Amino acid sequence: MNSRGGGDDEDTFKILIATDIHLGYLEKDAIRGNDSFNTLDEILKCAKTNQVDFILLGGDLFHENKPSRRCLHSCITMLRRYCMGDTPINFNILSDQTVNFNTTQSVLFPWVNYQDENLNISIPAFSIHGNHDDPTGAEGLCALDLLSASGLVNHFGHSQSVERIEISPILMQKGNTKLALFGLGSIPDERLYRMFVNNQVTMLRPKEDQDEWFNLFTIHQNRSKHGPTNYIPEQFLDEFIDLVVWGHEHECLIAPTRNEQQLFYVTQPGSSVATSLSPGEAAKKHIGLLRVKGRKMNLQKIPLKTVRQFFIQDVVLDDQDHFTADTPQVTKKVEDLCYAKVTEMLDEAERERLGCPLTPEKPLIRLRVDYTGGFDTFNTSRFSQKFVDRVANPKDIIHFLRRREQKGDIKDEVNVDYGKLLKNTAVEGLRVEDLVKQYFEATEQTVQLSLLTEHGMGKAIQEFVDKDEKDAIEELITYQLEKTQRHLEARGVITEQDIDTEVRAGSCMISRAKDVNAINRAKAHRLEHGNVPVDSDISNELALDSDEGSAPFAPPTRGRGRGGRGRGGRGRGRGELSYYLS
Amino acid sequence: MNSRGGGDDEDTFKILIATDIHLGYLEKDAIRGNDSFNTLDEILKCAKTNQVDFILLGGDLFHENKPSRRCLHSCITMLRRYCMGDTPINFNILSDQTVNFNTTQSVLFPWVNYQDENLNISIPAFSIHGNHDDPTGAEGLCALDLLSASGLVNHFGHSQSVERIEISPILMQKGNTKLALFGLGSIPDERLYRMFVNNQVTMLRPKEDQDEWFNLFTIHQNRSKHGPTNYIPEQFLDEFIDLVVWGHEHECLIAPTRNEQQLFYVTQPGSSVATSLSPGEAAKKHIGLLRVKGRKMNLQKIPLKTVRQFFIQDVVLDDQDHFTADTPQVTKKVEDLCYAKVTEMLDEAERERLGCPLTPEKPLIRLRVDYTGGFDTFNTSRFSQKFVDRVANPKDIIHFLRRREQKGDIKDEVNVDYGKLLKNTAVEGLRVEDLVKQYFEATEQTVQLSLLTEHGMGKAIQEFVDKDEKDAIEELITYQLEKTQRHLEARGVITEQDIDTEVRAGSCMISRAKDVNAINRAKAHRLEHGNVPVDSDISNELALDSDEGSAPFAPPTRGRGRGGRGRGGRGRGRGELSYYLS
Repeated sequence: MNSRGGGDDEDTFKILIATDIHLGYLEKDAIRGNDSFNTLDEILKCAKTNQVDFILLGGDLFHENKPSRRCLHSCITMLRRYCMGDTPINFNILSDQTVNFNTTQSVLFPWVNYQDENLNISIPAFSIHGNHDDPTGAEGLCALDLLSASGLVNHFGHSQSVERIEISPILMQKGNTKLALFGLGSIPDERLYRMFVNNQVTMLRPKEDQDEWFNLFTIHQNRSKHGPTNYIPEQFLDEFIDLVVWGHEHECLIAPTRNEQQLFYVTQPGSSVATSLSPGEAAKKHIGLLRVKGRKMNLQKIPLKTVRQFFIQDVVLDDQDHFTADTPQVTKKVEDLCYAKVTEMLDEAERERLGCPLTPEKPLIRLRVDYTGGFDTFNTSRFSQKFVDRVANPKDIIHFLRRREQKGDIKDEVNVDYGKLLKNTAVEGLRVEDLVKQYFEATEQTVQLSLLTEHGMGKAIQEFVDKDEKDAIEELITYQLEKTQRHLEARGVITEQDIDTEVRAGSCMISRAKDVNAINRAKAHRLEHGNVPVDSDISNELALDSDEGSAPFAPPTRGRGRGGRGRGGRGRGRGELSYYLS
Repeated sequence: MNSRGGGDDEDTFKILIATDIHLGYLEKDAIRGNDSFNTLDEILKCAKTNQVDFILLGGDLFHENKPSRRCLHSCITMLRRYCMGDTPINFNILSDQTVNFNTTQSVLFPWVNYQDENLNISIPAFSIHGNHDDPTGAEGLCALDLLSASGLVNHFGHSQSVERIEISPILMQKGNTKLALFGLGSIPDERLYRMFVNNQVTMLRPKEDQDEWFNLFTIHQNRSKHGPTNYIPEQFLDEFIDLVVWGHEHECLIAPTRNEQQLFYVTQPGSSVATSLSPGEAAKKHIGLLRVKGRKMNLQKIPLKTVRQFFIQDVVLDDQDHFTADTPQVTKKVEDLCYAKVTEMLDEAERERLGCPLTPEKPLIRLRVDYTGGFDTFNTSRFSQKFVDRVANPKDIIHFLRRREQKGDIKDEVNVDYGKLLKNTAVEGLRVEDLVKQYFEATEQTVQLSLLTEHGMGKAIQEFVDKDEKDAIEELITYQLEKTQRHLEARGVITEQDIDTEVRAGSCMISRAKDVNAINRAKAHRLEHGNVPVDSDISNELALDSDEGSAPFAPPTRGRGRGGRGRGGRGRGRGELSYYLS
């Protein structure tokens, strides 16, 4: 009997995707303490209701590396409740499971939980680990491994080596659909960036029938650029991937976006609980119901009902018409304005919450107040008192900012244009050393002299360049630059604001050059291994349709070149990295 | 198919009993780190080999309240390995499981793990918690609850109330044998003592067929008297019990001993890993294979092979013939003597270990050196160096003691004669106040005066007596006595040794009076509830045979009065405490 999901047929994988559940976040908070637990419950219940084939989690299931007893206990209980039962599993695993589940669990139970004859699993859950719940200690165990030892979760994508990462997919088949599930648990961004650049990361593909596999990759890293090498550019990932489920980033951008260079799609489900009061967390939280049939996919967004509402607004005092910094009793007026804004958000929250009994009553509210221009701050604790009965975070509703520039930074950083980076031919080809030189020429004379004379930077840089320690250069420059500039600031030569700008300019130039180099090297690496360049005009069978409803599979929207067409797979000629079906 | 245990029939419960496994003890120690894990593995393997019906653990499965990830992971893995599988379970549970497993797990899974249709359990394990792994936090969860949520262990005997403890047995039936399994997880001794005295502890018996049940009780408390109310006298326990499995005490005294007052047997399996270098831990470690058929039992001792050997010896320097404190270079001679003693123990260890491949190579060695009489200590770190390759605990082989009296204390305290306490009719009937008075009359004039004048003790005592705070009296007396005596010592009036003697005498007198009172009250409580006095001459069917081998059931050895013969059970007349089968 195959009764899974009304219109879904026996060739369609139904996968519930979610990430960054952060179970246990603020668990001791009297108001918000149960939020993460309620939402995990909702997610698992949703998986059950939708009769999915499996659950795919993108890391940070736990907020703490060492979750509390209550947290672990709740998690175990919920998984046992929702993921065990008599519903049959309708897909097979074709790959070598001892390779797929190469965590410590595998010593005794190197197989997917639903194939364990002592466990009656109805919904297998697959998860990579995140940076919050990453492996630690001599045994390299993480909290997920307790769940996997219990047979409640299949922890995959744990790379045991720091020298080389080989990502072996879990090869699944349901009816005629073949799904290759790749995963890579969280690794410090800088290290992983370096490993990509040094060709130490390899994704192993099935050698046969490459065209028939839908390649799904789960990763938990910075997607937005937090620093020069403190993220993973999408361009680093192999072009043969069809869909990347990107964990770690908390903003819900679950509708798959197409990477035009790599021609794959990326879905960023976002966290299911707000762990900061930043704009990204204010986006409505969703999980995804991914359907894969043959090479086609469809991603249905499912709004989460138990998530606490979060409203954020900015107010710039200097832009207000009613008062200036010199207006009498202006602080009172500012406070009144804030009161009005917060009340407005609360009213909106209440309207939205109508008819949503699962949504917690008190919303999270954040008002960012830019008081640049001579305004004073007011007493926020007194202000908080007024909202103690209506707001989940009364103590930190108001956030005073001093500079207008900070506004919108977060948004801007998320939307880094990776394409531009790659196309910036003017910079392409420059060596790092040239850029360092160019940077120093552009920098204020005073600073440059200080650097060179006081710290012997020139020599230091050359030494590092010789050693090919390119990260170190950047670190050293940034460090020394900041140090010198603080020094100058103390003497009144430059202002604090100057410093920020300078540091940003310097590190940006260096990192841009590094990005380009790195991406080019990674590209060359892939070409060398037999993949065609991305600007191929071969049409492809992959289709995508992402919507709020549950639309049927849409027709192909864009052509796409794919590997494996008479190119003999990704064998390196030496064959040691080829991936065979077991 | 019933193929369990060759000669064992379908009416015989086979139960593996073990306690104080202290998983994770010294887990970071390079030499001893794996000891506790290896022994748990041995114990579980033994349960499997012997095809027991279930495992009964007496608490402190974990050494740490919050076990490390490795520790939890290993435990889960081992339980999954040995306790899951296809072997059928041949006994039923007749009692209300929602009452038996009244921990937090029961909210969702209020049943024994082997009856969960999603888990294929071959050997159910039942455990109470110990003082090391006791419940904490608002949810009252302990490490065992993680295992029980996973379905790997059945945590029972967790009393949720601090006002009243009602111990409901798990009623099991195998063939014609009926087993009532009572358990009480660790509670601070003083509190439990007080609750017994105040009639706040009730053991619920099946109301029907009382004669047919074998009543097994598992407890994890001080059995030896660590302080006046800092232990649980066996006399506090109900007479209808057949066998007590006493956890917490680490010395292996697994051969059941008969309590002549209560007419039940007590087996003290002891820890399976030495967590201190005291004489009690040096007794050979065993677990038990308990067989219960009808009302008969047999306890087979099974020596543990993976336990690290532990040898302890005492040497009194003042008793040596070869030297005195004045002998030239006596410290060198002392060190040579110690070297010889340790070598002797090592040789003995090696001989004993012959043919025991599972026993770790390096034994634990402790030499207690009494250097009273003007001897000097020698450099133990240099001494340790000589044994670093042969001893598991090179750094603390030698333990210097200053007073001869400390020797043997441990042994003496374990062997407190509870019977004498009860029979001491001379003291019986005295009120605590009388004993306090008597104590002060017996105490040195100086001390007494100091107490009364300096601290107004007389008045304080009366106040406490009036409030019926008998514990407080004792605490206050001991505290004030010590304080005053320290004061006198400082003035040179008395010596340190005097103080110890005095304090012991004082607290002993008080506590003896309290014991007698408490035991009498508990007895009265039981009589009131319908049980006959223990000196009945009715013969009984209970037999006991405990040996090293696997002897058949022995004939009855002693007559014993039992409840339930025409006495109408233990109903209180009001009925609210009667226990019914579900």
